[in-house]
Amino acid sequence: MKAAYYTGNKTIEVADARAQAPGPGEVRIEVAYCGVCGTDLHIYLGHMDQRVAMPQIIGHEVSGTVVEAGPGVTDWQAGGRVVVRPLEPCGDCPACAAGHGHICQNLKFLGIDTPGAMQGAWNVPAHTLHRLPQNVGLDLGAMIEPLAVACHDVRLGAVQPGEYSVVIGGGPIGMLVALVAREAGARVLVSEVDPYRVEFARGLGLEAINPLEQDLAARVEEATDGAGAGIVFEVSGSAAGAAVMTQLPRTRGRIVVVGIHSAPAPVDLFRFFWRELRLLGARVYEPEDFEAAIQLIASEALPIAQLISERYPLAGLGKALAQMEAGGKVMKILIAPGD
Amino acid sequence: MKAAYYTGNKTIEVADARAQAPGPGEVRIEVAYCGVCGTDLHIYLGHMDQRVAMPQIIGHEVSGTVVEAGPGVTDWQAGGRVVVRPLEPCGDCPACAAGHGHICQNLKFLGIDTPGAMQGAWNVPAHTLHRLPQNVGLDLGAMIEPLAVACHDVRLGAVQPGEYSVVIGGGPIGMLVALVAREAGARVLVSEVDPYRVEFARGLGLEAINPLEQDLAARVEEATDGAGAGIVFEVSGSAAGAAVMTQLPRTRGRIVVVGIHSAPAPVDLFRFFWRELRLLGARVYEPEDFEAAIQLIASEALPIAQLISERYPLAGLGKALAQMEAGGKVMKILIAPGD
Repeated sequence: MKAAYYTGNKTIEVADARAQAPGPGEVRIEVAYCGVCGTDLHIYLGHMDQRVAMPQIIGHEVSGTVVEAGPGVTDWQAGGRVVVRPLEPCGDCPACAAGHGHICQNLKFLGIDTPGAMQGAWNVPAHTLHRLPQNVGLDLGAMIEPLAVACHDVRLGAVQPGEYSVVIGGGPIGMLVALVAREAGARVLVSEVDPYRVEFARGLGLEAINPLEQDLAARVEEATDGAGAGIVFEVSGSAAGAAVMTQLPRTRGRIVVVGIHSAPAPVDLFRFFWRELRLLGARVYEPEDFEAAIQLIASEALPIAQLISERYPLAGLGKALAQMEAGGKVMKILIAPGD
Repeated sequence: MKAAYYTGNKTIEVADARAQAPGPGEVRIEVAYCGVCGTDLHIYLGHMDQRVAMPQIIGHEVSGTVVEAGPGVTDWQAGGRVVVRPLEPCGDCPACAAGHGHICQNLKFLGIDTPGAMQGAWNVPAHTLHRLPQNVGLDLGAMIEPLAVACHDVRLGAVQPGEYSVVIGGGPIGMLVALVAREAGARVLVSEVDPYRVEFARGLGLEAINPLEQDLAARVEEATDGAGAGIVFEVSGSAAGAAVMTQLPRTRGRIVVVGIHSAPAPVDLFRFFWRELRLLGARVYEPEDFEAAIQLIASEALPIAQLISERYPLAGLGKALAQMEAGGKVMKILIAPGD
């Protein structure tokens, strides 16, 4: 089989690799599709070199088929179609003790802190697997991990039916958050500076504006008769997003911080005081979010397939990352590591 | 009677004033004590000149005795001992419609947006009055308004028994938040840079440190076996407070922003994401917070009297503000406008 290694300095090398037998408690899956995540782009750009042991096989948005169950694994058999929730908590830290294993203080993220899915076969702990329903294709299955992020964000944000919701940032996660919030009954506005993504959102039937062309806060105030938005999702990770997010919510409205802000950004804390706003950070997902994402995809309620822009063989991973870096007209690129 | 007017440029002028008969729905109270608030200091320093119509009688932390009920007021009689919840919501904006009248979008704050209590007699809307229990002196009664702020903060923060709580900023409000949180069963640490206030907190039996001398984050981590604080109250309004507040909470811990941050401050939004922290702004109080504060004072559970540093006649208001501006060794100064 082949594997794609990040070797530093914006370089992906595809090389032969040998499949290992699954260890105790592990399952070996044949990887069908692996989505390329914004985090993979961060790795590729060198932003996470201190965390990632090179050469490293990356990738964590995965669908596949069980090939072999390791010693002690009884509930998974060869042939089962699965997706992977790529989190390995320590089970021993205060976060785990508090039931927050998904944000364990010593969390291992499969595909970042350990070898990932950009290879023909991948060994993962059995507890990370979820079953893929028969009516869901393996390509859509690779969308479940990012969709589970969106389900987590919307659940923690407690989106209410009819609530005016703003999503700042229209990349793949922002788009999925918008779709899940709409499915929860919210009125959704996407704010995005990239014209391709603005049009993409509109193509999904979402209301979308470019805040470089229109005043976002004025638009929200007008749309809500002066009240403000019930909830704002900050998915852009930008200082501009951090600046505008506090201007949008109504009294006691919520802001969910989903985007990764690599440096402290100026935030209008006075506005939190003045309107008694609430802010909450949301990271990855819990098992119930994965199940919610699986059910959403199986229900065919969301136009998820439209988000898949390209499908490349493993040798296309470097090209995919270069396209994403260049801000190309792509939403989600899937890699087929077996091809 | 006399009244104290803010006339701009750090000037308080005491002059004769004529008591007016209460209008419809109003009650005239003889003011016993009026505490000097940090907001009064902001007014005195000119920070709020755009909002305050000069010359303006300031003051809003008040106790007194009913002198006369205006037309249409039936539930208040002369002689009743009262405190004033100095908020006048419009009743008509989206915040009021949502039940958030205390943060009404057109809120009039008595003593800031309208004439205040630094005068011998004060006419206020009857709906702003709360009854003072017989066992509570009028001096302690003037502490109920700031104590209600603390009750609001602790209630919105949902402090749990045994929870490790950090209060950043040990002025009067920080001290009251610490006392109310302790009364709710929390373990409380006060962080304060002023040596007088650090000692003051210790004199109240509170644990207190100076973060210029000790590493606050390390102290919290050690005290919580690596978990972090359950809740942090940011009462300092300082950029240093905004910087450190995110370093202290446990996973899904809460930060309550109480202090007034006059400019956007750099905030570590990554930490919100990483630990799924929550932040909530808390402003003034709702009626139930006033009732909680009254009951707390009546129960004599808290050493509130120790916070009263000085009692001055009305002519001492300028001196009081100058002492506060200079960072003098005072916690709460009460003015007796009738003296």
